[in-house]
Amino acid sequence: MTTKKNGQTIGFSNPPAVLGAAAVVGPKEGAGPLAGWFDVVKADRLLGMKSWEQAETKMVEEAVNLALAKAKVRHQDVDFFLGGDLLNQIVVTSFAARTLDVPFFGLYGACATVAEALALAAVLVDGGFAVNVALASSSHHDTAERQYRFPAEFGIQRPVTAQWTATAVGAAVVGPHGKGKVQVTHVTVGRVVDYGQKDPMDLGAAMAPAAADTIARHFEDTGRDPEAYDLILSGDLAAVGHPLCVELLERKGLRLDNRFVDCGLMLYDDTQEPVAGASGCGCSASVFAGYLFKNLEQGRFKRVLLVPTGALHSPTSCQQGESIPCVAHAVVLERSG
Amino acid sequence: MTTKKNGQTIGFSNPPAVLGAAAVVGPKEGAGPLAGWFDVVKADRLLGMKSWEQAETKMVEEAVNLALAKAKVRHQDVDFFLGGDLLNQIVVTSFAARTLDVPFFGLYGACATVAEALALAAVLVDGGFAVNVALASSSHHDTAERQYRFPAEFGIQRPVTAQWTATAVGAAVVGPHGKGKVQVTHVTVGRVVDYGQKDPMDLGAAMAPAAADTIARHFEDTGRDPEAYDLILSGDLAAVGHPLCVELLERKGLRLDNRFVDCGLMLYDDTQEPVAGASGCGCSASVFAGYLFKNLEQGRFKRVLLVPTGALHSPTSCQQGESIPCVAHAVVLERSG
Repeated sequence: MTTKKNGQTIGFSNPPAVLGAAAVVGPKEGAGPLAGWFDVVKADRLLGMKSWEQAETKMVEEAVNLALAKAKVRHQDVDFFLGGDLLNQIVVTSFAARTLDVPFFGLYGACATVAEALALAAVLVDGGFAVNVALASSSHHDTAERQYRFPAEFGIQRPVTAQWTATAVGAAVVGPHGKGKVQVTHVTVGRVVDYGQKDPMDLGAAMAPAAADTIARHFEDTGRDPEAYDLILSGDLAAVGHPLCVELLERKGLRLDNRFVDCGLMLYDDTQEPVAGASGCGCSASVFAGYLFKNLEQGRFKRVLLVPTGALHSPTSCQQGESIPCVAHAVVLERSG
Repeated sequence: MTTKKNGQTIGFSNPPAVLGAAAVVGPKEGAGPLAGWFDVVKADRLLGMKSWEQAETKMVEEAVNLALAKAKVRHQDVDFFLGGDLLNQIVVTSFAARTLDVPFFGLYGACATVAEALALAAVLVDGGFAVNVALASSSHHDTAERQYRFPAEFGIQRPVTAQWTATAVGAAVVGPHGKGKVQVTHVTVGRVVDYGQKDPMDLGAAMAPAAADTIARHFEDTGRDPEAYDLILSGDLAAVGHPLCVELLERKGLRLDNRFVDCGLMLYDDTQEPVAGASGCGCSASVFAGYLFKNLEQGRFKRVLLVPTGALHSPTSCQQGESIPCVAHAVVLERSG
């Protein structure tokens, strides 16, 4: 076996395929610019359930089942389920895992979770430890806002740097090399980076250095130029963080130009009230499972670099005056043939 | 490559070695029956820091650095750090990952986290994706009690079913096959099991079915008898959950007899006030990194089955009337030669 790892980047010798993916989103996300790319748009955020948490759980279950159906993988042929969400003790993912009833690895990578799940799913498949791995990453506006900030009903005024936690789930099934058109060829696993930012109402600024660090390391490890990618997407840096990341990358001598976009800036348009853009584990996950995967499958993109970003703080750590540690992982998705 | 997976169990073709392990514990754990097996016993739970969370972070950093020193692995040769804790958004592990400054996979498996980390570390090494993987799992009595129940200073009376969250960290370094005497030969990854128990003051009863499910599947998948193991350790079922697990296993036709013990019943003795026993991510992690690893290394045990158990609830999910989903993963640790 040849060495698969260079620096922080794993290159898969037999790149696992993304066999299917599905995005289930809330009404606001379904009214935004990417509406046509999502598989299911919910008419309301409660889904007729008794709690926001139950609604989010239902959305995860639906997204995973849809991804399995599209991948033509039967439930009994799923080796592992990997996933996570924003809630304390990732309860939503654990509840969905209970319903799915397959061996479960719970992950916490905040809004970078979908990349962590894609990386470990590809490792399990490429290493010969699994045939099919299901994964999901979710967030829900009301569960997250109540937990991290204020209940949505409180109607507090949001600072211009604040992002809107998306009600969205992205799910996928990763399987054997050659079984699907879209492949995971590389992952660059991020280190935790913290520039000392302490304001949880400005997470884009906190996460920008982690994104820049992982992106720069990806190019260093692979020896590639930005031109190798049709599109480079950061996770949810949004209106404040994305330009900061551009600046940090330019200081490292990297110009990504127009191909560098941000999932947090793609989910809503200017008329939709979210101030700086979208965030949440479901933001980059739904952009991946909806927009990215389908454009790759349909051949409009040949190769993209997805770099979900996560802020690893808690309300307690912020109240205690700690700064916000952040992480970003990069995943190369490539259309074969 | 031959098939490595049977049912829920992965058998490693080149079993990765545990190159080193270290347990750092608090004063109560250091006054218990396993005192002599721990590497560092702290004189107080605050470690001179400003918050319990900072103290727990320091303990994680110290345990990982000690494990690296014992493994004779330099910091720059660590490919990945895997770990988790009980706190919201696993902030303690994220803060420690920031200090360690290596590519990081955050995990959440509640008190089963050390098994999830050992499983994924072995997958990364056996699959050729990493040479050295560091891992840690921690809990701290005061950070966890305040978050899940009441601040310790409140002095609330505890029901007889309640367990005492251990102040303890277990860390280890997993590396190449043949490099160390203690190997990870198999892991059985658990499904989420929930028998409808809703009382967060009786987590042993909630977790017992998950432990029984994973243990039974391990024997089914491997075709082994319980006699194949010198010791079988559940994570932290404690005084209520452990006998329930014995009963559930007997109904499945499995008698583990005296070789079946519980980490939650090993950490404290009867004079130490904890009612039903110990719990927390650091409970099975410190028993593994202290007692188990050293006994295997010194040849007193030949082969053990470690089955950490986790309750995947949150205070919010319990307040909302949800039952407690649980998980258990089994890890086979074997002395080579």
